[in-house]
Amino acid sequence: MSANVKATNVTWHEGVVSREQRQDLMKQRGVTLWLTGLSASGKSTIARDLERKLFLDRRLCYVLDGDNVRHGLNKDLGFSPKDREENIRRIGEVAALFTDAGFITLTAFISPYRQDRDNARKLMKPGDFIEVLVDCDIATCEQRDPKGLYKKAREGKVPEFTGISAPYEAPLQPELVIDSAKLGVDEASNVLMEYLREKKVLL
Amino acid sequence: MSANVKATNVTWHEGVVSREQRQDLMKQRGVTLWLTGLSASGKSTIARDLERKLFLDRRLCYVLDGDNVRHGLNKDLGFSPKDREENIRRIGEVAALFTDAGFITLTAFISPYRQDRDNARKLMKPGDFIEVLVDCDIATCEQRDPKGLYKKAREGKVPEFTGISAPYEAPLQPELVIDSAKLGVDEASNVLMEYLREKKVLL
Repeated sequence: MSANVKATNVTWHEGVVSREQRQDLMKQRGVTLWLTGLSASGKSTIARDLERKLFLDRRLCYVLDGDNVRHGLNKDLGFSPKDREENIRRIGEVAALFTDAGFITLTAFISPYRQDRDNARKLMKPGDFIEVLVDCDIATCEQRDPKGLYKKAREGKVPEFTGISAPYEAPLQPELVIDSAKLGVDEASNVLMEYLREKKVLL
Repeated sequence: MSANVKATNVTWHEGVVSREQRQDLMKQRGVTLWLTGLSASGKSTIARDLERKLFLDRRLCYVLDGDNVRHGLNKDLGFSPKDREENIRRIGEVAALFTDAGFITLTAFISPYRQDRDNARKLMKPGDFIEVLVDCDIATCEQRDPKGLYKKAREGKVPEFTGISAPYEAPLQPELVIDSAKLGVDEASNVLMEYLREKKVLL
């Protein structure tokens, strides 16, 4: 991005720097890839693998996940339906800011409620919000169970656990479905990369 | 950022993409310039002028201000002391995310309480949070009064208006003080640019 970058198609228009100007500079379009799916379906793993590939392609990407949101911005929120709704509302707003800033924004949250995801979609312009169902049957998720959460949920130690004691509402018309019970991580992130190329997110 | 960018000092290490790797790619260090000061002191105007200069220098910058935060992420918050505190807390968290993402993040909020600003500072690493007092006497601010807010406050129509009916706690040790009663906008944003160069935020 420094003065030695070669592209010269950036001109200054009066007023504030526009999203379009940032995107010209960044050689990419800001979007949000909103990954949704059960716990252990592979959302974070796929997001991190895509992040790696985007970085190697010199693209600017940022992952919002439990690690950097639940312990920060949303640390005041629990797991009641109301708090889950507010959790996703704030994540949607932050993703909209990152998208406006020009980033390829990846969100990796279970986000089980259709209405909450649809609200996040409404914060963005058409084409900015790419809903990705990371689709994996619960038996496979439960077999993986990397954090032992399903085990705890079955023992009744985790209340309102999605897929066990709380509902998961799959998207009705997601932009993409990743069958993460069948696809490997590399194949899954390749599907997303291909989509970003096709939709000219990568300029 | 596309494949035709020339810098070649980006190598891949196992695991997730690190902040340092993003910064190498972006040729800048992520920081937050936290502008604080009275209403009409010039925070937003200076932030937008700096944004313009950074863009012309091909730097990635994003401004968080009332327009994109108060009507989005923080639209559920009012102006009570508790809501003001939560407003600044969330802005601090979002600024920390943008800083981690590698952006030169500008925040332009009155942020009148010292404790709230200090809390935002604590969210970031040393050197990441650059507190900028946009210093302007209230008489000058009131004379400018571009939105007619001081007039309304004097008429008692705006409760808890900073400097009139609510306190402004100036920073005790800000990294920078901009005397915006004396400096023009261009001079003010130049001071900030120079600081960013000196501190090697611009690589």
